[in-house]
Amino acid sequence: MTTRLTPGALSTDLYELTMAAGYHAAGNESLASFELFVRELPDNRAFLVAAGLEQALDYLEAWRFSRADINYLRRLPALSGVSRGFFETYLPDLRFTGDVWAVPEGVPVFAGEPLLRVTAPVVQAQLVETTLLSTVLFQTAVASTAARVVEAAAGRPVVEFGGRRAHGPEAAVHAARAAYVAGCEGTSNVEAGSRFGIPVSGTMAHSWVMAHEDELSAFRRYMEVHGPQSVLLIDTYDAVAAARLIVGAGLRPAAVRVDSGDLADLSVAVRRVLDAGSLEDTNILVSGDLDAHAVARLVASGAPVHGFGVGTAITTSPDAPSLSGVYKLVAIERNGRMTPVGKRSPGKRTVPGEKQVWRVGAADTAERDVIGLADESSPPDGHALLSHVVRRGQRVSLPRTVHDLREEGRLARTALPSVVRRLSGAERFPVTLSTALCALADA
Amino acid sequence: MTTRLTPGALSTDLYELTMAAGYHAAGNESLASFELFVRELPDNRAFLVAAGLEQALDYLEAWRFSRADINYLRRLPALSGVSRGFFETYLPDLRFTGDVWAVPEGVPVFAGEPLLRVTAPVVQAQLVETTLLSTVLFQTAVASTAARVVEAAAGRPVVEFGGRRAHGPEAAVHAARAAYVAGCEGTSNVEAGSRFGIPVSGTMAHSWVMAHEDELSAFRRYMEVHGPQSVLLIDTYDAVAAARLIVGAGLRPAAVRVDSGDLADLSVAVRRVLDAGSLEDTNILVSGDLDAHAVARLVASGAPVHGFGVGTAITTSPDAPSLSGVYKLVAIERNGRMTPVGKRSPGKRTVPGEKQVWRVGAADTAERDVIGLADESSPPDGHALLSHVVRRGQRVSLPRTVHDLREEGRLARTALPSVVRRLSGAERFPVTLSTALCALADA
Repeated sequence: MTTRLTPGALSTDLYELTMAAGYHAAGNESLASFELFVRELPDNRAFLVAAGLEQALDYLEAWRFSRADINYLRRLPALSGVSRGFFETYLPDLRFTGDVWAVPEGVPVFAGEPLLRVTAPVVQAQLVETTLLSTVLFQTAVASTAARVVEAAAGRPVVEFGGRRAHGPEAAVHAARAAYVAGCEGTSNVEAGSRFGIPVSGTMAHSWVMAHEDELSAFRRYMEVHGPQSVLLIDTYDAVAAARLIVGAGLRPAAVRVDSGDLADLSVAVRRVLDAGSLEDTNILVSGDLDAHAVARLVASGAPVHGFGVGTAITTSPDAPSLSGVYKLVAIERNGRMTPVGKRSPGKRTVPGEKQVWRVGAADTAERDVIGLADESSPPDGHALLSHVVRRGQRVSLPRTVHDLREEGRLARTALPSVVRRLSGAERFPVTLSTALCALADA
Repeated sequence: MTTRLTPGALSTDLYELTMAAGYHAAGNESLASFELFVRELPDNRAFLVAAGLEQALDYLEAWRFSRADINYLRRLPALSGVSRGFFETYLPDLRFTGDVWAVPEGVPVFAGEPLLRVTAPVVQAQLVETTLLSTVLFQTAVASTAARVVEAAAGRPVVEFGGRRAHGPEAAVHAARAAYVAGCEGTSNVEAGSRFGIPVSGTMAHSWVMAHEDELSAFRRYMEVHGPQSVLLIDTYDAVAAARLIVGAGLRPAAVRVDSGDLADLSVAVRRVLDAGSLEDTNILVSGDLDAHAVARLVASGAPVHGFGVGTAITTSPDAPSLSGVYKLVAIERNGRMTPVGKRSPGKRTVPGEKQVWRVGAADTAERDVIGLADESSPPDGHALLSHVVRRGQRVSLPRTVHDLREEGRLARTALPSVVRRLSGAERFPVTLSTALCALADA
């Protein structure tokens, strides 16, 4: 099976191509800088978690128009005014030769802070807009949601298993990745395990139980193959009765899973049955339409739950299914100099200029962020969040493993004040503009 | 660039594989029937629009475990108890040899109605669950949302251009497809155009205007390449002023687009300027965070708007970002006979038995649906929605074009009573169970 791990160059909006043809016709090869940022945090969110950068860079690295792509484009009525040269000599040779600055994945970010800055000849920078946005915004939305669930679980493991409700199988894979980067223990998604090395886990479905003559036969058959690491799903008919069956039959599964009903009450009742049957080492996992708030309530109730399986509430980020993310021109080369530009549309203003974000405070205690100009003459005394990841089309460093991203992200998130990480009623993290940027914004 | 247009066999949940290994170890090759259905309609929705079937069938057709897939699986600790035979002889030869019945794409469906039924040896039917769900549910969610926007536009064209906010670039392509099947005129997504033959359209971005010395130069440059079919974006600074610039310069674009501000007021003011300048043939397109309700308000206001560009509200279906869709075992072969089975978990009951849905009424006037048994002895007097699309692993008919699906779906949707198609306060379409199915459900 041939595999394309990155989207092709046609994964873009048609207007990127009409504009590209326009720049080409005018011989415009000016450098342009675009910044990708989220205008406003979703309701009830006090921070986002950056994610998707590796896939964005994979895309830029592989970015080119194939002969088939170009043949398709040539036949489009919307491009009928475009010169032959654009299709025959310009597009075939086009590669990404620009620079990218970006915030590392796993790191918390706030509204208005660039997650990514692209500086490249204007055609290149323009054509990659659509896919950079969908790649980075989607994973950032999922990572931000997953981080809240992980926080709610207060140290108990959270496994993502919402692939079935994700926006298609590819979205499932990248949701699993983003959830892992944001602190989940693993995923049920095997493709995500295979592609990224994310730990995978799985139990059994209700259909397994229903496909056997009776529940106990189903449990025995499963344990004959999978042995003491088995996790048995006990709520197909009656969870407490199933726990008694397990004890009575002398089975010793690693865990049982309850997927419906009142999980707090059931976990207490099931725990009692297991303990009475000397199955103190058999854990209880719970799942079933859980979200961050449901997980927090279970933890607060003291329910004897060892871990959580969370699906749809992570993979589709239902309380914030999209982010108000944009990719805006902030500077363009004029007479050989990068000149800041901005937009004045009502409600859609952009702050001009190439930016950097400084996080002020000790390494383990973030106090505030300052958004300033990338070439700020006296930068704030803090840690610069955006680093140079692509230089003249080449990656500056090797791709990062999800394990490294997950650990570094964890440190960056725990450095935030706990009042900012609260599930509800979180306080706003202070983010200000530098004096130089303020002056430019008001100009 | 190598291209994989369908997800691979590893796009599944690990528990499908632990169960598959269990069935294999027990030598269980019983036929099983699973049905994919949505438990409940999302709030404020009175119908869904089926979509995603072609991609689901593409997936089943290409479904196989590659050598690399199997090498990955063998190393998983979770599968350490599984026999060598499973990896060495069983998985390499596994193909989908079952039968599929399905509702055609574009057709409206309701809660509890199977969109798809798979009958196959239990291992096959189980392993394909995750990807069938994510493929069908995602496109169905988007098609259902898009159909509402199209209904709200009351005959004016709606173009989908929300790829940038979709859940990744692949989700963008399939969202564009589902939106088109549900009645959109086209998409901005070039990959969707190329892959499925969907009409593509595009205008210009604010960055095009900002990248030029002034707005008029930006408009002129664009029209030099794209001529009279150009659509000029006029709200970067001031939409009415920009319309005056266009008139003053004697430009004659096909349309102008307004993307921000009060679209009803601005369209009236811009129309006045264009008409006064003898640009009566220049259309006004509007966009900018539109959803079905905003489109309906603009239509109701009588705003002189020719068409709508709708993005995020279609591609991420934010008011219903996922559907409560499941894939449930409804029958299994026992002693050579298909035996209905169901689940009794609290709040998650399933109705046993292989089902068919009959839509009762004239071809252009649907009155009610009856869900009955597939082998109902005296079926209701109506049109059966599920048809046989895969027989013993082979597609029964050729893949359908999106154009045919779009037209047939339109007819099926307009057959619904208009009170069911209302944007708000819609009435429930009557769906009942047949006597035979009721008897089985209560048994």
